Amino acid sequence: MTTSAETPFALVDRAKVERNVARLRDHLGGLGVALRPHVKTTKALEPTSMAFGGGTGPITVSTLAEAEFFAGAGYTDILYAVGIAPGKLDRVARLRQRGVDLTILLDTVTQAEAVVAFATEHDVPLPALIEIDSDGHRGGVRADDPQLLEIAGVLAEGGVEVRGVMTHAGESYFAYTPEALRAAAEGERRAIVDAATRLRDGGHPAPVVSVGSTPTAHAATDLSGVTEVRAGNYVFFDLVMAGIGVCTVEDIALSVAATVIGRGPDESLLTDAGWTATSSDRGTSVQPVDQHLGIVTTDEGVVIEDLVMVGASQEHGVLAVRPGAGRGLPDLAVGTRVRILPIHACATAAQHDHYEVMLGEGEPVTERWERAHGW
Amino acid sequence: MTTSAETPFALVDRAKVERNVARLRDHLGGLGVALRPHVKTTKALEPTSMAFGGGTGPITVSTLAEAEFFAGAGYTDILYAVGIAPGKLDRVARLRQRGVDLTILLDTVTQAEAVVAFATEHDVPLPALIEIDSDGHRGGVRADDPQLLEIAGVLAEGGVEVRGVMTHAGESYFAYTPEALRAAAEGERRAIVDAATRLRDGGHPAPVVSVGSTPTAHAATDLSGVTEVRAGNYVFFDLVMAGIGVCTVEDIALSVAATVIGRGPDESLLTDAGWTATSSDRGTSVQPVDQHLGIVTTDEGVVIEDLVMVGASQEHGVLAVRPGAGRGLPDLAVGTRVRILPIHACATAAQHDHYEVMLGEGEPVTERWERAHGW
Repeated sequence: MTTSAETPFALVDRAKVERNVARLRDHLGGLGVALRPHVKTTKALEPTSMAFGGGTGPITVSTLAEAEFFAGAGYTDILYAVGIAPGKLDRVARLRQRGVDLTILLDTVTQAEAVVAFATEHDVPLPALIEIDSDGHRGGVRADDPQLLEIAGVLAEGGVEVRGVMTHAGESYFAYTPEALRAAAEGERRAIVDAATRLRDGGHPAPVVSVGSTPTAHAATDLSGVTEVRAGNYVFFDLVMAGIGVCTVEDIALSVAATVIGRGPDESLLTDAGWTATSSDRGTSVQPVDQHLGIVTTDEGVVIEDLVMVGASQEHGVLAVRPGAGRGLPDLAVGTRVRILPIHACATAAQHDHYEVMLGEGEPVTERWERAHGW
Repeated sequence: MTTSAETPFALVDRAKVERNVARLRDHLGGLGVALRPHVKTTKALEPTSMAFGGGTGPITVSTLAEAEFFAGAGYTDILYAVGIAPGKLDRVARLRQRGVDLTILLDTVTQAEAVVAFATEHDVPLPALIEIDSDGHRGGVRADDPQLLEIAGVLAEGGVEVRGVMTHAGESYFAYTPEALRAAAEGERRAIVDAATRLRDGGHPAPVVSVGSTPTAHAATDLSGVTEVRAGNYVFFDLVMAGIGVCTVEDIALSVAATVIGRGPDESLLTDAGWTATSSDRGTSVQPVDQHLGIVTTDEGVVIEDLVMVGASQEHGVLAVRPGAGRGLPDLAVGTRVRILPIHACATAAQHDHYEVMLGEGEPVTERWERAHGW
């Protein structure tokens, strides 16, 4: 990599992004379902467009700021996949008035009532998905919960479109074998199809049946009844995903470029990439192999055996040999550039306002991708 | 608090900032040393100016982006307190050419040689402090390490001003009694004065003797031999500082405003403030009382007994009753606003590009303070 950018910065390998997005596109194409990428990981236009082979397509967002950013670039089919706070309906309505088919998400009667009240008062359509809890991970109602039909009833009676159901199999991040991942994908599919069936039996068309997580999107072998898949992390991948076997370390397209600035305590090296650059996500601490705050590579992207980022303060990273590895600290002089592979790409990327992008390993940095930020 | 801002956002109580900055200013004034606040916590002009009672003064920065941001607002005496990466000297020189007396930091002969080479080639003064390791926490050379005089020798022979010594007593964050904090402050003072004495005995004037950390700055009762104190966190304070007794929970001037958006698993509530809003810092996990990802207050700033933020994903916070507290989940309806008090104010603030500022509790939000960002 050659670039005049000063460390620390977020570095993206465009060729790896191209390969990662092609892999999931091909996989889902073979299963006959649509892809609605979650842009919360990259928050950037270029890799999102690459996910569609150029052009635009249906996307998922985690903030209304993302929705506005992508709407400004011509995206018109957007799912805001965080339970709606009633105070945000104003902004949702403004996006719809701009011509964006923005779908909202909810899982309580209270939200349904607030949505109906707003839609009625302002005479604006607010199509909604109901969030389904497929694995006890976070929000949503269970497919067999009486509230499902109650929520749908409130919406439909109030003239709000019950567009369908959505779930996120968050527990798949803790599945460590191909069998467990396939089981998570099948559990996610079964729960969401059950929920859609109950809605339809209750008289609601519910055309959208949406599932998604990077692990289940790749592990699914049958998506009968599902209409769309959401995944976001897969564009970059990270060490959590490598740890559960969804990708290899070589697939990781994002890293943080850093410079060695000195020696730290207890046989360690200091870099200029602290948690402001890498995040302090410790997602692999619950996995069989703990990668601490990230694996270290050379400036050419070659993994430096057993060197990990073991600590961070605001603008300092601490690199040391993996505990028990039984080797000495590599000889990296002050001024040497290294890269830190992310534990959790969403968290690492969130620390940056843009990416420096190289065409591929050994190629210069020639692009800069801006990220949506804030809420 | 009344504001039209949508959650999540970073909320600052101006009256508490005023009180916090006055407290340290008075304390250090009584000890007869200068204050060089570290702006890495707030990264904002307004609270920094408040620390000087209005106007400007000497500051400490953690990035050159901060240096440039504050230089643009008239700050001319700036210490860049992260070990210099040789590749950044260009930008340091540009700041000095703008009239900023920017001091750099180093702790290796390699850096000293790079600084001398750059200063000679570009004919620019690059006054430097040598970082001293006072407690084995991070970087720096020990006061009795022969490298101290070696580094100073390389600088002086190369025509670079050895401006003095600096240390950061990072281990004071793990001191839990007034006695331990005073001991940390005295240990920091003694180490830095020893180092300055050795430099002066070696023929280097070393006029600057700089110490600092929020805990030691408040705990110090004697700063003989010290010329300046750095502290940054004290402007906002946080739960880590409350945990070690440097402040009370009521002193914390920063919080994250959030909205309840639903129910989560296992008797929990979901909010719209995930780790993008609060950070995932778990700094109190090693303290006697674990505050998880933060204490929860009402929208009026009243602590909700035993309610803590126990989990976070990118845009979801999970609130639950403190394990073992033996009470039920409070009845907070969807749409209710709450606030999360930060575990680590530097980390929480770093997730935001600005602060919404109320004059005081019960007052409306009337100011917006922008933060420096990036590197």
